[in-house]
Amino acid sequence: MSITLREIANKVGGEILGQDSTLIHGPAKLEEASQGTISFYANEKYSKALESCQASAIIVAKTEKARAKEVSNYILVDDVYASLPILLSLFNVNTAFSPGIHASAVIDESASIGNNVHIGPHCIIAKNVIIADGAILTGQNYIGANASIGKSSFLHPGAKVYHDCKLGAHCIIHANAVIGADGFGFSPDASGNFEKIPQVGNVIIEDKVEIGANCTIDRASMGSTFIREGVKMDNLIHIAHNVDVGPNTVMAAQVGIAGSTKLGANCMIGGQVGIVGHLTIANGTQMQAQSGMIKSVKQENTRWYGYPAIEYNNYLRSFAGFKNLPATLATIRELKNRINALESSIQIDGKTTNNS
Amino acid sequence: MSITLREIANKVGGEILGQDSTLIHGPAKLEEASQGTISFYANEKYSKALESCQASAIIVAKTEKARAKEVSNYILVDDVYASLPILLSLFNVNTAFSPGIHASAVIDESASIGNNVHIGPHCIIAKNVIIADGAILTGQNYIGANASIGKSSFLHPGAKVYHDCKLGAHCIIHANAVIGADGFGFSPDASGNFEKIPQVGNVIIEDKVEIGANCTIDRASMGSTFIREGVKMDNLIHIAHNVDVGPNTVMAAQVGIAGSTKLGANCMIGGQVGIVGHLTIANGTQMQAQSGMIKSVKQENTRWYGYPAIEYNNYLRSFAGFKNLPATLATIRELKNRINALESSIQIDGKTTNNS
Amino acid sequence: MSITLREIANKVGGEILGQDSTLIHGPAKLEEASQGTISFYANEKYSKALESCQASAIIVAKTEKARAKEVSNYILVDDVYASLPILLSLFNVNTAFSPGIHASAVIDESASIGNNVHIGPHCIIAKNVIIADGAILTGQNYIGANASIGKSSFLHPGAKVYHDCKLGAHCIIHANAVIGADGFGFSPDASGNFEKIPQVGNVIIEDKVEIGANCTIDRASMGSTFIREGVKMDNLIHIAHNVDVGPNTVMAAQVGIAGSTKLGANCMIGGQVGIVGHLTIANGTQMQAQSGMIKSVKQENTRWYGYPAIEYNNYLRSFAGFKNLPATLATIRELKNRINALESSIQIDGKTTNNS
Repeated sequence: MSITLREIANKVGGEILGQDSTLIHGPAKLEEASQGTISFYANEKYSKALESCQASAIIVAKTEKARAKEVSNYILVDDVYASLPILLSLFNVNTAFSPGIHASAVIDESASIGNNVHIGPHCIIAKNVIIADGAILTGQNYIGANASIGKSSFLHPGAKVYHDCKLGAHCIIHANAVIGADGFGFSPDASGNFEKIPQVGNVIIEDKVEIGANCTIDRASMGSTFIREGVKMDNLIHIAHNVDVGPNTVMAAQVGIAGSTKLGANCMIGGQVGIVGHLTIANGTQMQAQSGMIKSVKQENTRWYGYPAIEYNNYLRSFAGFKNLPATLATIRELKNRINALESSIQIDGKTTNNS
Repeated sequence: MSITLREIANKVGGEILGQDSTLIHGPAKLEEASQGTISFYANEKYSKALESCQASAIIVAKTEKARAKEVSNYILVDDVYASLPILLSLFNVNTAFSPGIHASAVIDESASIGNNVHIGPHCIIAKNVIIADGAILTGQNYIGANASIGKSSFLHPGAKVYHDCKLGAHCIIHANAVIGADGFGFSPDASGNFEKIPQVGNVIIEDKVEIGANCTIDRASMGSTFIREGVKMDNLIHIAHNVDVGPNTVMAAQVGIAGSTKLGANCMIGGQVGIVGHLTIANGTQMQAQSGMIKSVKQENTRWYGYPAIEYNNYLRSFAGFKNLPATLATIRELKNRINALESSIQIDGKTTNNS
Repeated sequence: MSITLREIANKVGGEILGQDSTLIHGPAKLEEASQGTISFYANEKYSKALESCQASAIIVAKTEKARAKEVSNYILVDDVYASLPILLSLFNVNTAFSPGIHASAVIDESASIGNNVHIGPHCIIAKNVIIADGAILTGQNYIGANASIGKSSFLHPGAKVYHDCKLGAHCIIHANAVIGADGFGFSPDASGNFEKIPQVGNVIIEDKVEIGANCTIDRASMGSTFIREGVKMDNLIHIAHNVDVGPNTVMAAQVGIAGSTKLGANCMIGGQVGIVGHLTIANGTQMQAQSGMIKSVKQENTRWYGYPAIEYNNYLRSFAGFKNLPATLATIRELKNRINALESSIQIDGKTTNNS
C-alpha cells in the first residue's frame, strides 16, 4: 500500500515542507529508513541519524524546522510523539476484516450476533453466545456456551473462550490465547489420588483489555476471575482461578499469578515474575522481572525485586554483598588470623587467653 | 439453569431446613453470595460471613445446626467438604456434549471411532486413529496418525495430539495444549550448524491425567515420554522428550522439565520450577515455586527451594543471611576497625604487631 | 511399519552379521529394546546393556565387531553416530503428507500456491499469501495477508502466522506456535490509561529455523523481528518485538527475550532464561537455565549464571558462600566475642579500650 504525503499530513495535522504527492509505503526508524518510507525525529540523541536518514519524508516538530534539509520532505507537527500512533495506524493493514460470517463457521442457532460482526472461517459459536456489534473473530476461534464478546472486540486466530466467560468491549485477544480453562483445583483422598473440584465460575474481562498470544486465564472455581478495564498482558502469561487484576495494570511476558491473588490498579509486573496465591497487592506496585512475590503489599507505589522478592533497593544492596561474598569470606579468614595472633600475643605476654 | 433445593439436597444426601422449592441458579462463596445462590459453611473462620450471607440457601454440618437462622434456607449434611464436589458438578454446564460427529470434522476412513463419541466441528482425525467409547473432542482438535484417545477422555478446543501418541481413559486436555511435538534434539556439525535428530518415539499418557491449557509434552527421541496415572498439570507447562512423570504428581503452572528426567510418584512441583535433564527425583519430593533443580533426589518426601535449589530450611536460613548482608558487612568493617585498634594498642605498648 | 534389516543396512551403508530378512518395526535404546526393534551401541559405558539387549538387531562399529554375539543380528558401520539420524528417519512416519489442498481449507484467490504443496483441513490462507513449493501446512493453520512460507517448510497443526510475516525455506513450526502477534507497546496518558501503539512491522524467519510448540514471536513495532538462519527454539519461548536472534543460536524451553535485544550467532540459552530489552549479546554467549540477563555482553564465548546473571564461575563461588552464610554468621559472632574478650583483657590490664 502507498499513501501520499498530503494524506499523511492531513491525518496528523501537520504542514508539508516538500512534495505533497510523494508516495509513502510504510514507516521506519531513522537509521533503518529507505526510499519510500516515512520516519520521525523527536530526540536530540538521534540528530546524527536524522542527517544521514534515507527516508522519503520525516516528521519533525515545528520548533525543529531548522533541521529540515532539502534532501528530503518533511511534515512539521506540534507534537511528534502524539502524531506517531496516527501515522502507524495508517499503515496497519490488519484492520481489513469486513462484516460478514464465513460459510464454514459453525454457529448455534441460539447465538445472538450483532451488526457489522466479522466471523471468519472455521469458528465455533456455541449455544446462547452473544457477539456484540462490530466484533471481529478472525478465524478458528471457539466461543463456548453462554459466553459473550463485547462491542468491537478483536479475536486473533485460534483464540478460545470457554463457556460462560464474558469479554468486554474494545478488547484484543491474540492468537491461541485461552480464556476460561478450568482452575487448578483438586482434593487428595487418603491414598494420594486427586479428585477434581468442578470449576463452575467464569472469567470476566472488562473493556479495553489486551491479552497476548498463548496466554491462559483460568475460570474461577466459583464466582469470577476478573481482568479489569485497561489491563494489558504480554504473551504466555498464566492467571489462575479467582485472581483479580486491577485496572490499567500491565504485565510483561510469562508472568504467572496463583489463585485468588488480588492485584491493584496501575501495577507494573516484569517478565517471568511469579506471584503466589491469596495475596493482596496495592495499587502502583512494581515488580522487577523474574521476581518471586510471596507476601501482600499494603503500601502503594513500592518496588520489589528478588527471589523471594524484597524491597528493590534492599535487593540491590544484598546482591552487591552476594557478588562480593568470596572476597568477604577472605576478609573474615584474615580477621580470624589476626585475632589468633592478638590472642597469642597477649598469651605470650602472660595474659589470660580466651579462645581454645 | 435453576435447580430446586430439594433436588440439591437429594444429590448431596442432606436434610432441608426451609423451603424445598427454593430455586438455585449457582453456588457462591459466603461473602460473595447473592439471592438465588447456594453457599456453604465449613470453617469457624467464616462465622461472621455466615451471619451476613445473602445466599438463598447454605449447606452446613448437622453438628452446626444451631447456626441455621430463619433468614435463609439450609441443607444439613454429615460432611460439608464431601458434599461440595457433588454440589458444584450439578452446575457444571460444560458436560453437554452429546454423542455425534459434526459434518465439518475431517476423519480418515481408517480411523476407529467408538460408541457415544462426540467429535466437534473442524476436528482432524488422521489415519489409523482410535477414539474409544465416550470420548469428547470439543472442536478444532487434531489427532495425528496412529494416535489413540482413551475411554471418556475430554479434549478442549484446539488441543493437538501428534501421530503415535497414546492418551488413556478419563483424561482432560485443556485448550491448545500440544501432546507429542518433537523433542529438542540436534547434533552440531563442525561449522556450528545443527542437524535435526528425528524424534521417532511418542508420548504415553495414562488414565485420569489432567493437562492444562497451552501445555507442551514432547514425544521421545526413541521410546516414550510418560505421564503416569493421576498426574495433574496446570497451564503452560513444558515436558521434554523421554521425561517420566510418576503417578499422582502435581505441577503448578509454567513448570519446565528437561529431557530424560524421571519424577517419582506424589511429587508436588511449584509454579515456574525448572528441572534439568537426566535427574531422578524420589517419590513425594516437593519443590517451592521458581526453584531450579539441578541434582537428583534419593530420599523421599524432602522439600527444596532456591536457585539452584537446596534443602528448603537451609534456603530460608541462607536467604535470611542474604537479606542481612549489608548489615553483616558493616559488622565486619567494625570488627576490622576494632582489630586495627587492638593491634595498634598492643604495638603502642611495645608488643609485636602482626598486620601491615 | 516394518523394514527388513537388509533395507536398513543399505541405507546406513553397513554390513550385516545375521539374517537379512529380519523385520524391524522401530528403533530403541539398548536397555529398552525388545523383539522387533533395532538398537545401537556407541559408548563403552553401555557395554553391559549391550550384552543383555533384547533387540532383534544392533548397530555397532566395525572396530567393535568382536562384541557381536550369536544371540542377535548386527549391522557393522564406520560411524554409529552418523548412521543414527539415517536410521531414525526411516521410521519417521510423519513425513506422509502428500501434495494436495484439502477441500475445507479456505484460500483467498489472490494467494499464490507453489508446486507439491500440502494444505491440510481447516487452514486459512489470506490475501496475497505466497506458499512456496513443497511446503506442508498440516491443518488448522492460519496465514495472514501478505505473509509468505518458504520452500519445503512444515507447519504443524494450529500454528499461526500473522499478516506480512516471512518464513524461510526448510523451517519447522510446531503446533500452536504464533508468529507475528503484536509487540507489547503502549503509551500511558496522564490518567494512567495505556494507548496502544500500532505494531506495523513484521517477523522475518530465515531458512532452517525450528520453532517449538506454543512459542510466540512478536512482530516489530516498525521494521522486523529477525530469527536468523539455523536458529533452533524449544517450546513456549517468547521473543518480543524487534529482537534479532543470530544464526545457529539455540534456546531451551520457556526462554523470554524482551524488546530490541540483539543476540549473536551460536549462543546457547538455557531453559527459562530471561533477557531484558535493548541488550547486545556477543556470539557464542552461554546462559545457564533460569538466569536473568540484565546487561550486554561484548566478549564472545562467555558463560553467565544467576539472578541477575554474573560470570558463571563467580556465581558458583558466590552461591557457595550463600549456602554457607549461616555458618559464616556464626563465625562472625564468635570473632566478635573474641574481640570483646581481647578488648576487656587489655582494658583489665589498664590499657585503652576502643569499643563501647
